[in-house]
Amino acid sequence: MKMSPRCTYCLLSRVHFQSKLSTDDEDLISKTLHECLGVMNKHYSPEAVSASVATKIHRKCYEVLEDNDPYKVTKKLINQAALKVLPAAKEKIYENSPDDGELFRRAVLASVIANYFDFGIMGFDASEDKFEATFLKFFDHGLDVDDTLKMMELLQDVVYIADNCGEILFDMIVFDVIKKLGGKITLVVRGGPILTDVTLEEVAEFQIDKKVDKVMTTGSNAVGILVEEAPPELLKAMKDATLIISKGMANYETLSEHNFGPIAYMLLTKCECVAEDLGLEQGLSVARLMNFP
Amino acid sequence: MKMSPRCTYCLLSRVHFQSKLSTDDEDLISKTLHECLGVMNKHYSPEAVSASVATKIHRKCYEVLEDNDPYKVTKKLINQAALKVLPAAKEKIYENSPDDGELFRRAVLASVIANYFDFGIMGFDASEDKFEATFLKFFDHGLDVDDTLKMMELLQDVVYIADNCGEILFDMIVFDVIKKLGGKITLVVRGGPILTDVTLEEVAEFQIDKKVDKVMTTGSNAVGILVEEAPPELLKAMKDATLIISKGMANYETLSEHNFGPIAYMLLTKCECVAEDLGLEQGLSVARLMNFP
Repeated sequence: MKMSPRCTYCLLSRVHFQSKLSTDDEDLISKTLHECLGVMNKHYSPEAVSASVATKIHRKCYEVLEDNDPYKVTKKLINQAALKVLPAAKEKIYENSPDDGELFRRAVLASVIANYFDFGIMGFDASEDKFEATFLKFFDHGLDVDDTLKMMELLQDVVYIADNCGEILFDMIVFDVIKKLGGKITLVVRGGPILTDVTLEEVAEFQIDKKVDKVMTTGSNAVGILVEEAPPELLKAMKDATLIISKGMANYETLSEHNFGPIAYMLLTKCECVAEDLGLEQGLSVARLMNFP
Repeated sequence: MKMSPRCTYCLLSRVHFQSKLSTDDEDLISKTLHECLGVMNKHYSPEAVSASVATKIHRKCYEVLEDNDPYKVTKKLINQAALKVLPAAKEKIYENSPDDGELFRRAVLASVIANYFDFGIMGFDASEDKFEATFLKFFDHGLDVDDTLKMMELLQDVVYIADNCGEILFDMIVFDVIKKLGGKITLVVRGGPILTDVTLEEVAEFQIDKKVDKVMTTGSNAVGILVEEAPPELLKAMKDATLIISKGMANYETLSEHNFGPIAYMLLTKCECVAEDLGLEQGLSVARLMNFP
């Protein structure tokens, strides 16, 4: 996905947000904004890939702040918030013993809604006290784009590319269902801390490796997956997979520039640029299968 | 007022907003954002005056768009929206024949609330269909900072610096009251089109000159009043005035850098940076007298 004019101020707003998470030093915050403005001015182009520019901006931000993980505390809070909603979600998913198709659909839906566990996206209000109510509202609404039936035929060898903390605890329910249906899962997490994204640290903390067959990383702290920074074994796994599941907007922003497939984008259209790129409205729950023969 | 990190993305968001008002040409919009990013990167500094940088940004924006007034149509719509609310406002102001003090307070309050007639300020929702309900809600709430009693003693020779279209129609009620109380009014409007601000065009359209003793301009299309671009006769009038009334945030942002006085800032704290600079919360109705011996 190419960047939109809107990405300029949305990204700078996020830089400000995470700078304030990292420090109270107003001069340092100001310096960080200015340095990131410089990076934006240098790399802004309607031909540039949005998440690729975002990677450059966030790396500069972290460098100036001298903080390799401004969201360290926030990620813990998000996981705690997610844990609180998890029992209600599981109850909804397993309610009235659904058949395999309905079970998979519900698990996917819950994991898509959990993409809501994110902060700092302009215009998207995700305050913690609203999580459960919001979850139930979205769950009752269902998937706006639902390719789960087609996806179910492709679960033999899944590469599952995770997105945010919090969300990952709901992804684990999808892992359970895929395993129940006889599938194999290679989980991919970020190679280093970036935004609120899942890394090997959360994999260890929540023993997520026990739910899947293999864990890989994206090879770097890039926003999404930058192919030029990805380990060869990841690219091979993606090439060989019967289905790639890509969670969230950043993975879409980067992977939509390539021809991997079959690939299912599971996300909430939280930002209007991603929504527009998908030809959808903002605020929808999406499980869309693409590059499928 | 000095600029805050927040001004960077708020201003770029406004550039995008007004670019879309001016054209559907995506390439031109993108080019405009990029050029304005360059200006921001060059002039951003925690020591810079926010409205002064805003002037540079908006001038570059208008130049790249080759449009000297992107808000031309919007201003008409704002005036129409304001005209619809005006009868309800007048009824409230003159209800139960208030004494002079109460009448002046109510007129000031209405004109402060009318500062709401603005678009494109990030996080501030001013959709047209909510204007009357919002007006009545704010009116019943009253002024959060109310120096109207002290202001009333200084109305002999008022320099009244206008802000937005729409709002100006409510300012005219204040003019009526000041004249009733025996005061003299020099109205100051922008010297050229900028944002939704009042210019000589609206003065002529609504025959505002008949309500006041004299009309001057700020000498340019600067955001607020840039002293270095102001005509000497305006600076003299401001120096000689018994009271300067400064409407809105941009006039505050520029004039708060100088020692004009006595000066009454009449505004809604629509943005958190201006609110913070005044030591106030966001969203308050303010009539604050300053530099008063």
